[in-house]
Amino acid sequence: MPSYSAPVKDMSFVLHDVLKVEASGTDGYSELTPDFTGAVLEEAGKISRDILAPLNQVGDTEGCVLENGVVRTPTGFKDAWGTLKEGGWTGLDCDPDYGGQGMPFMLNAAVGEVLSAANMSFMMYAGLTHGAYSAIHAHGSDSQKQTYLPKMVSCEWTGTMNLTEPHCGTDLGLLRTKAEPQSDGSYKITGQKIFISAGEHDLADNIIHLVLAKIPGGPEGVKGISLFIVPKFVVKDDGSLGDRNTLSCGKLEEKMGIHGNATAVMNYDGATGYLLGTEHKGLRAMFTMMNEARINVGMQGLSQAEAAYQNAVIYAKDRLQGRDVTGVQNPDGPADPLIVHPDVRRMLMTQKAFIEGARAFMLWGAKLVDDAHRAKDEAADGLISLMTPVLKGFLTDKGYDCTVLAQQIYGGHGYIEEWGMSQFTRDARIAMIYEGANGVQALDLVGRKLAQDGGKHVMAFFAMVKDFLAEHKGNDDLADFMEPLKAASKDLQAAGMWFMQNGMKNPNAALAGSTDFMHLFGHTCLGLMWARMAVAAKAALDGGTDDPEFYENKLKTGRFYMARMLPETGLLLKRIESGADPVMSLDAEAF
Amino acid sequence: MPSYSAPVKDMSFVLHDVLKVEASGTDGYSELTPDFTGAVLEEAGKISRDILAPLNQVGDTEGCVLENGVVRTPTGFKDAWGTLKEGGWTGLDCDPDYGGQGMPFMLNAAVGEVLSAANMSFMMYAGLTHGAYSAIHAHGSDSQKQTYLPKMVSCEWTGTMNLTEPHCGTDLGLLRTKAEPQSDGSYKITGQKIFISAGEHDLADNIIHLVLAKIPGGPEGVKGISLFIVPKFVVKDDGSLGDRNTLSCGKLEEKMGIHGNATAVMNYDGATGYLLGTEHKGLRAMFTMMNEARINVGMQGLSQAEAAYQNAVIYAKDRLQGRDVTGVQNPDGPADPLIVHPDVRRMLMTQKAFIEGARAFMLWGAKLVDDAHRAKDEAADGLISLMTPVLKGFLTDKGYDCTVLAQQIYGGHGYIEEWGMSQFTRDARIAMIYEGANGVQALDLVGRKLAQDGGKHVMAFFAMVKDFLAEHKGNDDLADFMEPLKAASKDLQAAGMWFMQNGMKNPNAALAGSTDFMHLFGHTCLGLMWARMAVAAKAALDGGTDDPEFYENKLKTGRFYMARMLPETGLLLKRIESGADPVMSLDAEAF
Repeated sequence: MPSYSAPVKDMSFVLHDVLKVEASGTDGYSELTPDFTGAVLEEAGKISRDILAPLNQVGDTEGCVLENGVVRTPTGFKDAWGTLKEGGWTGLDCDPDYGGQGMPFMLNAAVGEVLSAANMSFMMYAGLTHGAYSAIHAHGSDSQKQTYLPKMVSCEWTGTMNLTEPHCGTDLGLLRTKAEPQSDGSYKITGQKIFISAGEHDLADNIIHLVLAKIPGGPEGVKGISLFIVPKFVVKDDGSLGDRNTLSCGKLEEKMGIHGNATAVMNYDGATGYLLGTEHKGLRAMFTMMNEARINVGMQGLSQAEAAYQNAVIYAKDRLQGRDVTGVQNPDGPADPLIVHPDVRRMLMTQKAFIEGARAFMLWGAKLVDDAHRAKDEAADGLISLMTPVLKGFLTDKGYDCTVLAQQIYGGHGYIEEWGMSQFTRDARIAMIYEGANGVQALDLVGRKLAQDGGKHVMAFFAMVKDFLAEHKGNDDLADFMEPLKAASKDLQAAGMWFMQNGMKNPNAALAGSTDFMHLFGHTCLGLMWARMAVAAKAALDGGTDDPEFYENKLKTGRFYMARMLPETGLLLKRIESGADPVMSLDAEAF
Repeated sequence: MPSYSAPVKDMSFVLHDVLKVEASGTDGYSELTPDFTGAVLEEAGKISRDILAPLNQVGDTEGCVLENGVVRTPTGFKDAWGTLKEGGWTGLDCDPDYGGQGMPFMLNAAVGEVLSAANMSFMMYAGLTHGAYSAIHAHGSDSQKQTYLPKMVSCEWTGTMNLTEPHCGTDLGLLRTKAEPQSDGSYKITGQKIFISAGEHDLADNIIHLVLAKIPGGPEGVKGISLFIVPKFVVKDDGSLGDRNTLSCGKLEEKMGIHGNATAVMNYDGATGYLLGTEHKGLRAMFTMMNEARINVGMQGLSQAEAAYQNAVIYAKDRLQGRDVTGVQNPDGPADPLIVHPDVRRMLMTQKAFIEGARAFMLWGAKLVDDAHRAKDEAADGLISLMTPVLKGFLTDKGYDCTVLAQQIYGGHGYIEEWGMSQFTRDARIAMIYEGANGVQALDLVGRKLAQDGGKHVMAFFAMVKDFLAEHKGNDDLADFMEPLKAASKDLQAAGMWFMQNGMKNPNAALAGSTDFMHLFGHTCLGLMWARMAVAAKAALDGGTDDPEFYENKLKTGRFYMARMLPETGLLLKRIESGADPVMSLDAEAF
């Protein structure tokens, strides 16, 4: 059975050596001392190691079962859910007015990686609840907040997001679910929603569905969409549970992975719903949830890569097969461990260098979220808005690739289910698809975010990289970080310039390269993160750290990224500059 | 349910326009007229479309079941097996002396793609039988051939290859299965083998296991391995079935995919076996089977990519979602089909350009096999020996990536099992692992094949590319093919040179870049294939073909490969030239 151990030291390095969170001045960060974050992450790590990781394969094997409208989660999930609630983990960064602990999102993101790495399906129940909490917190009336939030913060009740319908995924303008106004101010919701994660289950007393629907007579398309709170049990004025609402789970989907999470077809048959926010402005309210969810999904890509990597390392050290060509390493054994072989190293280093870079990117992104929300820092808000599709798309694409590499190290043992390596790839696969498939992220990045506010935010990113490089100019010890970063950043700017020059005439010229651009951006961000980590590691070494090996290893891992992974930017630029023609020249009938 | 339709026109283009098989002078190729190959492929296509494809999801869902030592294949497999046998498909390229049809391997490869695309798990039963047939045909005594081959050609009996043991995969020197000589010249085989595809099932009257084992007292390591024929039922002198041998299937593995094929743990308890070939030379005999199997597995990568692609195209044309940003394409519908979106096009073109290039590479490789075997052409033999790890490794790595892209086009519908797109990725995944994991292919290529016969074969490849480019120099119409091919070939040569200069001092310098080199080689081969296809397409257009669109589309698809995919060679060279240091500098303990 795969195991998991929280990478607390690596996380602390990012939080304290690189981002220096405690002294950063972000509201709430002064509590984030190394002792405090270390203790929280260690504690989360224990839950992950002892409770969640052992249930991961159980969830995969048993899956969720629908019988007579009731969904049973896998063995052990209920007890684990109790542990999660009791520890207050579900409300870590939630508003204290509703029972939350009021900690920064940053801490939640770090803890989220640890818990999700151990059991992604399980943590989705909490993740979706948090998203629904955020939407109600941002857009709900006082009375709605009082009614729903305390129970959602504690996860006595869970939440969902209901967007997709059978004929309508990305294109929400097509949705058909109807919301008919009633005389008491409520609405009757009618329609079918599919792919509803955590749509029905036995972990909570109530499930608060947030449902996109159209009020008859409203504007056409996405401009006529409203968001509704549709509880499984209608909540009475005194807060107790009233009637079962007229909604039901019609089916659970058979999926490639995340079997421990119930993916439901939800049927709303004139169910009682309450408008959340403003009529016809439902998409905006849903995006509060969606932006959070997208960052969270990027984190899932990272978390599954980390979990798979840890187990690949264990196997590569343990499995004896072949001999080191440069000289026997294990003379007393029948063969050397796999890890002596350069191609196995290549796979491990690819995972390690991605994961550590991605974690820094994720935590840096989390800091931007805190700056934006807690300090109303508009620059940070613009930057994280720009970065959100990159975090989602790049981290899930590359995180998935890492799970495939980890599986590959196991050879045939990676293909049979016994060792659990197949599950990491099957679970990680969904992260490239849901909350907006990665192609949609790329479209959002290139079609919307790049030009947002006159391109101010991408210019701010370029300026940041430029300033960083200027600051470390002449630092020859780190030239193997700074030069590749400079080259990558040049590629990114060239791509942006190419879009500006060609995308106006022909939008397809930009869109044909949108996924390439998302990856180019992601690589540049990870290059920046590795350069920042190198600066921090070197400072620690220069300062006479008593753990020089740790910092030396950071430099070695970073050099792998800079030498072997970051140069992908050149290829991506070449693809972008080849334009729309190669992509679009065939008639649709020719496929 | 996914569908499949044989790409006969594309195959004919490669066979007749590009390779011009009929006039190529290869022994047996004069029969390969367009009418003949077309008829054979159409007929195979019917079986695939009507019988095998409809059973693909059935096989995935039901899997194989072991009860009381008996393995039941999925519903419908037995009948389909009957159809395959009756049509003579199992002995297409087998020796007429044993009931085969004596056709070229080339035709078998083309037919193999068609049948395997429709149902990979099912076709593995035949594929393994063919491999065992080849080993017995090459190394067996006359009496062994008479006893086993006719029934294996007709697939009344099937075959297996037994290499792996629990502690020993790639490193066969570690194997423990024992073969004790008996006074009658037979051996008693004792040991456990795992991951035995088609190890036990209900499709055949007998199963002929080829088993690697050690004769006590023989040399240590791989030099003491012999190969044995170990039939499930001992065959009597009159050819009828005798006693049940003392071997049994102990377990079927739960796997990520290929559920329709039984992956067995095989226990040999003093089972009666017969030496195949020479004592202690078993590995050589096994490699007859393995080389064939490796090419066949490369073909599986291609076949699954093709099957997944076909269904991605259907969905992309059918699913209405969003609008073409350059102008509405489907004004009467609520939205435009997915295929209008540039990022969807990018995914489809990536698959299409890979698949068509890979098919040409595969069929060219098949021609080399025929040249080597039928005409004893040593140059062809050397070249296909060099190419085999590239065919296996590159086509399965990239083929898998294509199945992931095809799945991605379905969005959430690709993740649920209902649409069958998950199965293509789960099935294709094994091809990167079995018959030597792709890292082992890369090691074989860089560590053995490159320097084989003094590097003669790789030099011959370079010379071939050079001659081709010289022949088409000044052909400005095809400059967008020739220039990128030249650049790729230059990258490949630079990589080879770098290995020569650095690999002697430090073998790890070459091995760290071995997978990159395998991909660099694969891309160059596909670049060469696309350039050859472009020449053929242009010749057809210049010659006044009555199907100009077909050939124009070949050029358009090829241009996508040359502009967007082939330039990966530059990145791969950069990685290779970064050498061993980034890969090897961490201590094993630091992972």
